[in-house]
Amino acid sequence: MKSVVFLSGGIDSTVTLAIALQTSEVHAISFDYGQRHIREIESAIRVAESGRITSHQILPVPLFRFGASTLLKTSPQEPRTEAASGLADTYVPARNTVMIALAAAYADSIGASTIWVGANADDYEGYPDCRPQYFEAFNLTLERGTVSKPTIQTPLVNLKKAEIVGLGDEYGVDFSNTWSCYNPKGDFHCGQCDSCRLRKSAFRDAGVTDPTLYAT
Amino acid sequence: MKSVVFLSGGIDSTVTLAIALQTSEVHAISFDYGQRHIREIESAIRVAESGRITSHQILPVPLFRFGASTLLKTSPQEPRTEAASGLADTYVPARNTVMIALAAAYADSIGASTIWVGANADDYEGYPDCRPQYFEAFNLTLERGTVSKPTIQTPLVNLKKAEIVGLGDEYGVDFSNTWSCYNPKGDFHCGQCDSCRLRKSAFRDAGVTDPTLYAT
Repeated sequence: MKSVVFLSGGIDSTVTLAIALQTSEVHAISFDYGQRHIREIESAIRVAESGRITSHQILPVPLFRFGASTLLKTSPQEPRTEAASGLADTYVPARNTVMIALAAAYADSIGASTIWVGANADDYEGYPDCRPQYFEAFNLTLERGTVSKPTIQTPLVNLKKAEIVGLGDEYGVDFSNTWSCYNPKGDFHCGQCDSCRLRKSAFRDAGVTDPTLYAT
Repeated sequence: MKSVVFLSGGIDSTVTLAIALQTSEVHAISFDYGQRHIREIESAIRVAESGRITSHQILPVPLFRFGASTLLKTSPQEPRTEAASGLADTYVPARNTVMIALAAAYADSIGASTIWVGANADDYEGYPDCRPQYFEAFNLTLERGTVSKPTIQTPLVNLKKAEIVGLGDEYGVDFSNTWSCYNPKGDFHCGQCDSCRLRKSAFRDAGVTDPTLYAT
């Protein structure tokens, strides 16, 4: 059974990859959408090289032309370092919709039956395109609009980051290959942005050794 | 009210544009997805320049990396010239899904409430991503997964090509700017491919003068 796995190089997609590898032949896909932290693509390549995947491709996506999100390198602002409520300033309009659409095109081309996406419970509030009812609707869209009718699987969608780290640890994931930081300092995570803070506390709460190099 | 209009340079999208212009500020979007008939993008530019649209952009989409469709220039085969039943050999996997996703990203960025797509009744059989129930499911996806919750409008979805030509004629559409041919001979339509045959018969059945230059 073939599957397509979103691989961003972060913890969530890396753990999702480990799960997908249990049952399927994995074709990984990463996206260069003009993100500020291009460093994550390097991590995606490292993760892919360390896994037993069948293929890995990196697709350019012209989202940067639209973006107001601080995650995009075209934004004059850096992402906020404090947690905020409501819509995240790192929201990239319809990002998951675009990525899932491209993954569906790929899946429909190679006859893959599953698209694995590492969305999780921490993303609910800030990102409408990370919620279970969104993925349900998209599955219906793909059932009606493609030939191979791939289904989106989100095994982490009800898990918090600490639970995901714990699960990845059970699967033997090497977290040193993964990347989370929005404001990298070379090969170091900044240790202060939203994403770094979430990463730090996830390892601590999971009781798993954190192999990350933090600048602070 | 802002809207995003798919503009391929063909008859359907050009008539849809004329309808959208009645009620909204139009931001047109065209896609360079590696199609064999790149000539259609030139036509999209001509149509855009002749209309009262607010902006027009052409987005590169990396669909050609996946494609088995004869519509893609990476295919060794030319499109068939005879009508076929079942899935069209010109089917590009999940093409509309990818294009609508990108249009949604754009709409969500500029706060547009509508995405206009020129799908029509002739496309039902060969293209699963041109059917009303597909667009319904995608609307639900966008309602759940975006901030501006744009809705897809398909005013031609129940019309045959001849009816669309008739409707465009009522709106004063200049059909000489539009393009249909899969196998262009310079600035001439080949006159023989599926798409040219459909175009010819549509003008004839609609009783509208056909301004197209055909090679045969």
